[in-house]
Formats: sequence, structure tokens, C-alpha cells
Amino acid sequence: MKIEMICTGEEVLSGQIVDTNAAWFGNQLMDLGIEMERRVTVGDRLEDLTAVFQERSLYADVIIVNGGLGPTTDDMSALAMANAKNEALVENTQWRETLEAWYSDRGRTMPASNAKQAQLPATAIMIDNPVGTACGFRVKLNRAWLFFTPGVPHEFKQMVQEQFIPFIQQEFDLEETTQLQKLLTFGIGESTLADELDQLPIPEHITMGYRSSMPHIEIKLFARGENAIEALPDVTARVKAVLGDALVSENHPTLAAEIHHLLLQQKKTLSLAESCTGGLIASQLVDFPGSSNYLQHCLVTYCNAAKTTLLNVSEAIINQYGAVSIETVEAMASGARNILDSDYALATSGVAGPDGGSDDKPVGTVTIALASKSAIWSQQVHIPINNRSMIRTITCAIAYDMLRRALLGKDPVANYSFIKKR
Amino acid sequence: MKIEMICTGEEVLSGQIVDTNAAWFGNQLMDLGIEMERRVTVGDRLEDLTAVFQERSLYADVIIVNGGLGPTTDDMSALAMANAKNEALVENTQWRETLEAWYSDRGRTMPASNAKQAQLPATAIMIDNPVGTACGFRVKLNRAWLFFTPGVPHEFKQMVQEQFIPFIQQEFDLEETTQLQKLLTFGIGESTLADELDQLPIPEHITMGYRSSMPHIEIKLFARGENAIEALPDVTARVKAVLGDALVSENHPTLAAEIHHLLLQQKKTLSLAESCTGGLIASQLVDFPGSSNYLQHCLVTYCNAAKTTLLNVSEAIINQYGAVSIETVEAMASGARNILDSDYALATSGVAGPDGGSDDKPVGTVTIALASKSAIWSQQVHIPINNRSMIRTITCAIAYDMLRRALLGKDPVANYSFIKKR
Repeated sequence: MKIEMICTGEEVLSGQIVDTNAAWFGNQLMDLGIEMERRVTVGDRLEDLTAVFQERSLYADVIIVNGGLGPTTDDMSALAMANAKNEALVENTQWRETLEAWYSDRGRTMPASNAKQAQLPATAIMIDNPVGTACGFRVKLNRAWLFFTPGVPHEFKQMVQEQFIPFIQQEFDLEETTQLQKLLTFGIGESTLADELDQLPIPEHITMGYRSSMPHIEIKLFARGENAIEALPDVTARVKAVLGDALVSENHPTLAAEIHHLLLQQKKTLSLAESCTGGLIASQLVDFPGSSNYLQHCLVTYCNAAKTTLLNVSEAIINQYGAVSIETVEAMASGARNILDSDYALATSGVAGPDGGSDDKPVGTVTIALASKSAIWSQQVHIPINNRSMIRTITCAIAYDMLRRALLGKDPVANYSFIKKR
Repeated sequence: MKIEMICTGEEVLSGQIVDTNAAWFGNQLMDLGIEMERRVTVGDRLEDLTAVFQERSLYADVIIVNGGLGPTTDDMSALAMANAKNEALVENTQWRETLEAWYSDRGRTMPASNAKQAQLPATAIMIDNPVGTACGFRVKLNRAWLFFTPGVPHEFKQMVQEQFIPFIQQEFDLEETTQLQKLLTFGIGESTLADELDQLPIPEHITMGYRSSMPHIEIKLFARGENAIEALPDVTARVKAVLGDALVSENHPTLAAEIHHLLLQQKKTLSLAESCTGGLIASQLVDFPGSSNYLQHCLVTYCNAAKTTLLNVSEAIINQYGAVSIETVEAMASGARNILDSDYALATSGVAGPDGGSDDKPVGTVTIALASKSAIWSQQVHIPINNRSMIRTITCAIAYDMLRRALLGKDPVANYSFIKKR
């Protein structure tokens, strides 16, 4: 089965809205082990829509079309489809009555423009939309079933889950079993990873892919069919052996998520003292519901006065060693941990740039410390990227990874191939 | 000039990453008054890539291709283009040397796999990438120039701005003068905006567009030609009159950027006490170089013990009124401001959900206070969206807007049409 998607709408094409429907739909298919072949995004011009329906119907078995079913004049998916098939638009009495009932249930008269939403291509099979005024429909043209869905995200999602997926499962007998294994890495470049992993023998029907999402690279092993699924654990083990310290999660898409789950699991508390990361660690953790179970406080001590007043870092230490130093961040971590006697505290301080660097501490120099009730660990590294936001993001990741390793009983200071220790 | 975009990569097609490059690029074109005709998204299959390059080169004058220039085996845009044009891949000596220098400058040897990034189709014209290891290139096939760019967002953006746009401006003689006016709004829904603005008479050759980027809607007024440019200030003034309080910036893309510039300009200092926003305000400000000039500290007091210990909020107040109350956030703002006697302090506390809501304080109830040296203002609102991340983002925006209004000498508490005051 070859499946494609056609996204319609000037606002999607011109970037006024980011096309989250397309990404969501791709993920739904992947969870079913179905690969999409192509996605085409077109604006609201009738002739473009007609042309793209005709053209793609020659190549795909199923085409999901998203958008253009609304009541306004720039919604013309139904008309374009009727033109593409050279047939008339015909009123679907059932949907017309549904619409009228929808409005009268709400004590309103149906606006004239909505009648258009019951006009479907003559050979269309209507698809119910229980949560909106735009019904879906499907039409066969050439080799393809074109399946039309509304652009409103929650209407689209419900129609995909309740109608589209059962339709393709039945129509195309999707029985083949598939399995996906994801491995999240940190601290190793994509080319170094590829150099090492491309030498591994990968059995037939297992494919390996990479997804780079700064500061992580995720490795995906996709197995298709019984034999490949059986071989997957062994392949995974060999990949993990190559990764070593660079493997930071098997279950979660980010280090923040990994830390969130580990802290909840182990019922440990955390405090933070953030200088160059400036609240980024706290903010990423607070984004998870339930983070209040472990996160006690975070002090963004951006000026030196805040470091001494709030964290009890002695002025002498800052004057002697500087704000970006092992001595200062260790004092910050201890100070943060002491306030409410947390199980752990993380502290960061660094030169995020673009200004503020020196020969001794160039932009990208960051220092991170982890304090527990009984010990303190720290490291100073140089991140070789002159980009403020990236330096802050990578600093967060190193901090998370120190805590992750401590929670798992490992030495908190790892070796990352692309980050130099100082 | 007909312009299309081809986005490549399994991870974009399958929705593992949302294609923000495509949306950003659409916006860039719109700012130049250029409409995109079509966008095609394909995966990492060589034959699909080759076919789509050949096919689209028959219809478009310029095709920007994004992604597939990395060092790994699933990056094959260059090979697919060479196949599409039926020519060989040839090493570009200049880029090979640039790559080797890039690595040796960093005290590293170039991994073998990177050599692939200097292999370009025989007739390609190399395009410099000063911030990454993937050079771009352009190739003429049929009627189209195919212009290849890296998928890494900051590399892509730099190449578009510094190389792609000048290229099409020169190649296609885009001389017509245009002007763009952007107005950033907050607190008003798109349909309400459209209902009011669509009634304004807009002169010929001025077009009005919207870009929705939660929590903001940006209004764009685009003028094409001398007469339209002359009329633009008058149209802008009429739009501003309709917007009233909803207009929050004329020069900056976000409220955070507006606040950053106002604080620098007025040389005022700021402290923060964040509960439900959890470091998000601090983090967004710290992302701007120079924020250390005004941001003194931020206390993320996520548990009540932190509020009393760090901010000196009395336990009695929290017990009597609750953590999400006018009384508590006012005490938090005062407490935060007092520590280093900042000019201003902002404090937030709210029910971000999905749990923790009650009949009295449902999910979405948030309280925000602003303290100055002489006064304190606060408001409790209900944000009618059951989404943790969105509630936190909108809370930040309200906090910024209170500070913005105070800095401009206005009443800090505005009326937002879509947010209910409590």
C-alpha cells in the first residue's frame, strides 16, 4: 500500500501556521508500522488542488487530504475533487439534515454559507464528523482512494482514529507486525556515530535511522516481520555496546524526561542553582505534570550579589576564582542543596556569549556541579559552538546527565567525545 | 517566478519532527511578497528523491531543497540530484579543504564519513556554509534552479538569508519596492480580530495577513509599490486604533524581546519569583545576550517551604488564602524585590494542570503580581485552555505585559478579550 498526504491551505503553505496535523498523522502511521511515501502542501487555488488530486491519484493507493472543507469561499477541496473526477457536486441530504439539526439544537438557524458543507462530489461516500460542521468523504480516482478530512486539529484527529485507520486496515489487510526500538544519545556527533554504527552487520528487514534533535541524536531500529523482530534485541545490544556512555535513555525522548521519571521512581528531591542556563533546567522539568513531587526550588543567581545573598557563596571565592569556576559552582550547588536539605542539587555557571569570553575562559566555557547529601562532583568543559542558545541547551544536558548517572550509581562525570574537558 | 520547496527526511515525513524550517521559510518569502506554489515532503529513499527532483524541475523556476546533506548514509540529496541529472558526483576540492581545516582548527581529525559532504553533482555550484559541515549547492535542471540547503535550522536560516534570497532577487529581477509592517498582538482571538479588521477599507496593493504563534497573533500589512507604501502609515494607524490594548509590540517578535529592550533602555533591574511558570520567564530573558544588565535573580519557589524560606512569604498567608491567591503572589513579588532592592519584581502562581484543579480554582487559574519600589499590582485570571504548557506560556505573556505597561506608564492591568478576570 502506497500512502500519501495532501495538505491544503494558504496559511499552511506560507507558514502562518506550523503544520502540526501532518506531523501528528505521520507519527500515527509510524506507530502502525506504515511508512508515508510523500506529502504535498498546496494553497487555496482551485486549479492547483484539482491538478494535485489528479496527479497523485496515479501514484498512491490512499491519499489523505487535510483541510479545505469549511464554509468560506477559500475552502474548495470538494469542488476541486469533483472537477478532478469530472463530475458534479451533489447535495448530501443526510449531512444537510445533520447540519440543520446541529444548529437548531443550539437554538440557531444555519447560516447560508454552511449549506456548502453538504455539497459533495457525486460519487463520494460521506464520512461522519461527530464534533464539527465539516463532514469528511472519500472518493476513488485512478488507483487511489482520496480520503478528505477537516483541518481543525481535534476534528481531524478524531476522524483519523475512528474512521481513517480502520478503513485502511480493512481495505489493505495490514497484518505485518513491526517493532521500533529507540535509543537516545548525547555527547557524540552524528558522523562519529555513523562511522562506528555503519560497520555493524544489520540483519535483513531491520533498518537503522538517526534523528538529530539538538543536543541529542536518537537512533531508531525498525524491525519488519517475525524474524526481524526476533533479531532486534541482539542488534540493540550490539548498538548499545558501541554507544557506551553516549546512551542516555531507552524509553524517553529527552534527558529531561529521563530525569523526571528517575526522580519520581526513586522519590528523591532536587534543587537547582542556575546561572548561565538561567531557569532552563527548572522550566523543562516544570513542564512535566508531577514535577512538584521532587523539584523544591531553583535559584537563578544571575548576578554575583544574588550568588552571595541567596546561595551563601563567599565573595572571596568569587573574587579569587571567578563566577565561572569549579570552586564557585560547587559552592552554588552546596548552597542550593542546604536551603531545604534536598537529596540533590545541580548548579551551572558559564560564558554563554556572544560577549564575556576571555583567553582563559572563552565563550562556551561552562562549569557544572552536582551535590548529594554526602558528596560533590563537578566539571568544567568547553562547548565548541558559538551560539548562546545552544551553549545553554548543552549545559542543561550535561547537568541532567550528571544527575542521571548519579541516580543510577555511576560516576557522574562521563566522557563526551565532542566536548572537551578543561 | 514559480517557487516550490522540497523537504527531505524520514523524520520530517513521519512527523518525528515538526517541520518548522518550512513554516519559517514560507514566512520569509511572504515578507518579500513572494507566494510559494507547492511544498513536497519526501523521505530518505533515493529513487523517491530522484523522481521528485526530476518531476518538480518541469514546473518550477526555483526549488529550495532542505535536508539530506549530512554525513550519514541516509543523507542522499546530492546523490539523488546527480542521478536526476544523469551525471556523476565529483569531489569539490574547496569544500574538502574547508572541512579538513574545520576539524584541524578544533584539534580533531575529520571522520571518514564527512568526506561525503564534499561530493557534489558534477555541474553543481557550491554554496558556502560558514556555520556547519554541510555546504549548500545549486544545480540547473529543466526550467528550474534547485538550491540545496542543510536541515539544521540555524544553518538553513543563515543560508537562506545570506545566499538564497540574494540569489533569487538577482536571478529574477525582484525589484519592485515593498514594505512590511508587523504588529504583535496579545489577548485577542483570531476570529474576533478578523471580524473587526476585515471591515476596515484597505487600499489596493496593501494586503493584510495574520500569523498565529501562541500566545500571540501577529498582523502583517504588506505594501507593494510606491503608492501603497505611501498609504501604509495611515492604514497602520487605523489598525492600531482597532487593536487598542491588544497591541503589545511594533518592533519585536515576542513580548520577551519587547521587555528585554525596554529594561535595557530604561536601565531598570528585575527580579522574579516563579511558581507555575517555573523558570520560563527567566529562561526566555536569559536567552538574550545582555540580559545580565537587568536580571538580578529568579526564585523558582515550587514548594511552599521554598516560598516561606526564600521569599519570606508568611505561612499564615499561604494557609489562609492558598498558594494560588492574590495575597500569596503579592507577598512573593515583594519578597523577591526586597532581596536586592530591584526596581521591579514579577511573581506567578497558578494551577497549570492537568491535576490540582478544584471547583474554586480550576485548572487554568493563575495569579500574577508586579511590584515596583512604590506600588504593587496583581490580577487573578482564568485561562480557558486545558494544556499545561500553554497555560504556562500565557501566564508568562500576561506577566511580561504587566511589566511592559508599567514601564510605559500605563495601568499594568489590561483587559484581554479571551481571558476572564476573576
